[in-house]
Amino acid sequence: MEKIDNNLAVNAIRVLAADAVQQAKSGHPGFPLGAAPIVYELFANHLRHDPADPEWFDRDRFVLSAGHGSAMLYAVLHLFGYPKMGLDEVKRFRQADSLTPGHPEHGHTPGVDATTGPLGAGLGMAVGMAMAEAHLAKVFGRPGLPLVNHYTYALCGDGCMMEGISSEVFSLAGTLGLSKLIVLYDSNNITIEGSTELAFTEDVAARMRAFGFQTLEVEDGTDTDAIGEAIRLAKADTARPSFITVRTQIGYGVPAKQGTASAHGEPLGEDNIKVLRENLGWPSDEAFFVPAEVYSHYCGKAERGATARAEWKAIEASYAGAEAEAYALFGKYMGRGLPASALAYLGEDVVAEKAEATRNISGNILNALKDDVPFLIGGSADLAPSNKTEMKGAGSFFADSPEGRNIHFGVRELGMGAIALGLSLHGGLMPYVATFMVFADYIKPMIRLAALMELPVLYVLTHDSIGVGEDGPTHEPVEQLAMLRSTPGVYLFRPADETETRAAYHFALTGGRPTALALSRQNLAPIPSSNAGARRGGYVLAREDGGVADVVLVASGSEVALALEARGLLAKKGVDARVVSMPSLDVFFEQDKEYRDEVLPPTVTRRVAVEAGSRYSWGEVVGPFGAYVTMDGFGASAPAGVLFERFGFTAEKVAEAALGL
Amino acid sequence: MEKIDNNLAVNAIRVLAADAVQQAKSGHPGFPLGAAPIVYELFANHLRHDPADPEWFDRDRFVLSAGHGSAMLYAVLHLFGYPKMGLDEVKRFRQADSLTPGHPEHGHTPGVDATTGPLGAGLGMAVGMAMAEAHLAKVFGRPGLPLVNHYTYALCGDGCMMEGISSEVFSLAGTLGLSKLIVLYDSNNITIEGSTELAFTEDVAARMRAFGFQTLEVEDGTDTDAIGEAIRLAKADTARPSFITVRTQIGYGVPAKQGTASAHGEPLGEDNIKVLRENLGWPSDEAFFVPAEVYSHYCGKAERGATARAEWKAIEASYAGAEAEAYALFGKYMGRGLPASALAYLGEDVVAEKAEATRNISGNILNALKDDVPFLIGGSADLAPSNKTEMKGAGSFFADSPEGRNIHFGVRELGMGAIALGLSLHGGLMPYVATFMVFADYIKPMIRLAALMELPVLYVLTHDSIGVGEDGPTHEPVEQLAMLRSTPGVYLFRPADETETRAAYHFALTGGRPTALALSRQNLAPIPSSNAGARRGGYVLAREDGGVADVVLVASGSEVALALEARGLLAKKGVDARVVSMPSLDVFFEQDKEYRDEVLPPTVTRRVAVEAGSRYSWGEVVGPFGAYVTMDGFGASAPAGVLFERFGFTAEKVAEAALGL
Repeated sequence: MEKIDNNLAVNAIRVLAADAVQQAKSGHPGFPLGAAPIVYELFANHLRHDPADPEWFDRDRFVLSAGHGSAMLYAVLHLFGYPKMGLDEVKRFRQADSLTPGHPEHGHTPGVDATTGPLGAGLGMAVGMAMAEAHLAKVFGRPGLPLVNHYTYALCGDGCMMEGISSEVFSLAGTLGLSKLIVLYDSNNITIEGSTELAFTEDVAARMRAFGFQTLEVEDGTDTDAIGEAIRLAKADTARPSFITVRTQIGYGVPAKQGTASAHGEPLGEDNIKVLRENLGWPSDEAFFVPAEVYSHYCGKAERGATARAEWKAIEASYAGAEAEAYALFGKYMGRGLPASALAYLGEDVVAEKAEATRNISGNILNALKDDVPFLIGGSADLAPSNKTEMKGAGSFFADSPEGRNIHFGVRELGMGAIALGLSLHGGLMPYVATFMVFADYIKPMIRLAALMELPVLYVLTHDSIGVGEDGPTHEPVEQLAMLRSTPGVYLFRPADETETRAAYHFALTGGRPTALALSRQNLAPIPSSNAGARRGGYVLAREDGGVADVVLVASGSEVALALEARGLLAKKGVDARVVSMPSLDVFFEQDKEYRDEVLPPTVTRRVAVEAGSRYSWGEVVGPFGAYVTMDGFGASAPAGVLFERFGFTAEKVAEAALGL
Repeated sequence: MEKIDNNLAVNAIRVLAADAVQQAKSGHPGFPLGAAPIVYELFANHLRHDPADPEWFDRDRFVLSAGHGSAMLYAVLHLFGYPKMGLDEVKRFRQADSLTPGHPEHGHTPGVDATTGPLGAGLGMAVGMAMAEAHLAKVFGRPGLPLVNHYTYALCGDGCMMEGISSEVFSLAGTLGLSKLIVLYDSNNITIEGSTELAFTEDVAARMRAFGFQTLEVEDGTDTDAIGEAIRLAKADTARPSFITVRTQIGYGVPAKQGTASAHGEPLGEDNIKVLRENLGWPSDEAFFVPAEVYSHYCGKAERGATARAEWKAIEASYAGAEAEAYALFGKYMGRGLPASALAYLGEDVVAEKAEATRNISGNILNALKDDVPFLIGGSADLAPSNKTEMKGAGSFFADSPEGRNIHFGVRELGMGAIALGLSLHGGLMPYVATFMVFADYIKPMIRLAALMELPVLYVLTHDSIGVGEDGPTHEPVEQLAMLRSTPGVYLFRPADETETRAAYHFALTGGRPTALALSRQNLAPIPSSNAGARRGGYVLAREDGGVADVVLVASGSEVALALEARGLLAKKGVDARVVSMPSLDVFFEQDKEYRDEVLPPTVTRRVAVEAGSRYSWGEVVGPFGAYVTMDGFGASAPAGVLFERFGFTAEKVAEAALGL
């Protein structure tokens, strides 16, 4: 009877997913038909989840890395009775304003722990979640009171495993011994272009063993008992993460499609769905029909999670009593709010006494904050000494010391970016990650996901221009500023001194959004900056002497001092210039029109942008008739001073550009 | 005597590299000190190279994937007497205008086969070179006349192997059985943050075996005989690529630094260099001193390559006689020039008869060109059916059919990007690669390298806007247009119809530069386009009715038809609008001022940009006082028509924006 229930229950996922895709005339039915037994067995018998509270903190996490299997996930969430996930939502798959978009969207659909779609990204997010769990479990766990104690599951396909990010994050997961990470690999040997024989004949499990994973295999992907047994073995290994290969058939149940690429990304067609129902012995021909016994089966299966949550609530209550101080601290982690002391520190105007690189300033700020903001955690892709991102004395996150707050990501920028998403998604932590700014290119796909999910991840990007110097053009950012500014929902700051850097951190740690800091390698001269001004994105740094400026010089970061100097030169020639420091175009454009017009008066159309980056950032400020002192080609290898001179970043050249108007 | 020579010769590399870094007060001495025996043994006794002709087509290729080891490579090129690589250049390491920049730059320094620095990229380039060799060897090889027949070597470090790209490209290399690819892995267990124990405890060789490589190991990295023996074994395996792990010590010879991260990225200091010379038994304390016998040793070693080149020249001569037709074809591959028929086809104005997606048009063009342009080779990261990139009947590149011109890259966008660089760098081929435009993010680091090297790689990026529809925001590009336009040396085209798509291909295949095509998923209505105009980047599509336009509407791709429609609406309201189609901002900005002013008259300052992408692209055209009908947030999951309506891409909204001015 249990077995019959299982089959019906599994088939309900299949049929609902196929119907949803068919109704939408768009979507991916093949994966759900093959992987339904995996997701059924996991959600029904292993995953600690309670549909009554999808956000329950100590739930197990589930990441559908193969995000195109969304219809399957929605079917499962519906069958388990997740809030708002009625049958209507399954029917509105991929339609405007539904809770069932084309790929799973975290924050949009109850029960979706991560936004996925770009293949492989979910694997990194899962690793980040497992790291967060390990860290918090160690920090807050007390004998008999495991306040944080859950597993992280990821479900991936062949595409995820082909992506390089899978190696980056799993190599690290193996090194860190994240034994509560369990990866389920739906191996159906089919990708969009055809058989994996075309391009992917590697021994995936052997690769995973090389990374330090326990590997398990389920030969028959329809055998839910075998899948369950593999998950039990995975949990039993408390030293290594586990990787379970489940052999499945894409498009299972549809003879015209199964085992072929055509099952992947288009509706099956009404005729095939009819055959599917027959083959599965489905009791009705009606679309979206679900037998009542299936709902009651899932309802019964949901009880396990409700019990688990109740047990955890009891632990939490005991913890609150026995470990009041720790529990109060736990609350602070959960809220991720900055204490007043940190806010005051970051909101301060600092009078700089000497020239200083903003990367050094950033390092000082991180170290000033580390005690006040204990949920701050992060590191660099093997460039901590250059990025200045080490929190001294805060320990390193290793297999035997997950309480360490300095993470060594290795030379894996993309993977680092995905892990940061997972650290943030998990809750309780505020992650930062770092590399040379030019390598923001590698993290970009993950920064985009941070923006889509509105996650407060901090990107510390040092060496932000030709100021890199001798390392040359492969290491000198040019277009990266424009790339990040033009990405919706990402906030870029390029501060000019300590005051502006503190303001940038203020925004990053309170703004609730992904924020990138572009920081200098070289020392920057002091300027009369304003913290409040910087927090509005841009402000008047040096006002014109007369009533109306002849020209406005707008600059950021290392070029602000240059603009100030140019203003002096212009004054000598009788030209009255205003200097605007614009550390964040993104924030500035969000200010009200009145403020923007105050800083950049519409009447002053003679404008000069000064920044050692692509002119594309500045078009909307300067327009077709202004002047651009920007980088419009690549840099070169030479001492930084030589490069700034060569590429025209001198006060004289800036003044000349202004005079040219 | 030979052995003594070897030691002296190896130490010459070490000492020159250390001196170069010391003189520059900048650079990476640690890697050269450890890896000098590897590069010595390879260049002296295995690599087929002739310093007299660094560009000799059938030379073995060498990629220093660990580009920070540049000082070592420059020392070797100097010692072998490469053209222009006198001792002065070694002394001018990392200085302005030297031939010895911080990281190796192809096209700048004789003997440098690839620009490297971003770790791991060189591995992909090497795979691409090996694929090019396999392809050309099969296409042009004749019994007894191996016209193309050489090896590709890559030298990498721990950082390269941590990067995910190493898995992407080596998994494919294993699948394709690229037996003439030989990777030398300098394993010194040190990265910038410290021991590889921190973040990288995987079994690298086991991973490589999982990919299908032969793995070999040299326990003592100073033993050049053992290194040589491993290379011989690598060559002996004619079914699999080979991976040779060489255990070395970073900073070898400098007790204060060796085996530690401090050896990596800063000069050793004069004192340490003194100790180094003593430990190596170096015969002089003078910086940049090289004993005459070392030069003569290298001179002798260069003879092997000269002989090999002479032998190849003889083969070439026989080939030219015996296989005149094939040899003529070989010449065409070498020149990569388009025949007149293809140029005429691509230069044509086509009157469209029905709405068509530019991705379909692109597919038709590729198929129209495939016979005329036999050196065109490429494929997609597992999206060929969607990207429309299959050249029908041109075969697939598999292990047993390297003559196939359709490459199945698998779901590996970054690796694909690097392989394309290698295909192009090798010579004789014109590569194209494809994916969804939103995933250009993943390829970006490699597109940047294409721009730095000025390689004519074609990027076919389909699904270029919210026109993606149901797949939702993770799959809908917004900022990618701005990202590519702002990257120096990259040319982006977003054509509106067949004529403009042909023009884009014309530029891509004759321009000699990396070119990206942004192509629509959805059908686009016919417009009265101009091929010649498109090839200038932008042109007047619909002129104003009177003498001076009231407003200019500037649009690209799918929004051009919308702008035309809006013009009609405006006319009804008595507003006289000009419509400019701007398929390539990059190309347009390179036109002379006269042309630019003709298209965008400076007197008409009322301008509206219309593009379903970030407004950052259009600032310099439209300025602070124009209007932007652009995408300033992410898209959503719904049918495409719904999304265009929702996000304001209607003729009414465009007309409204114009009226607002």
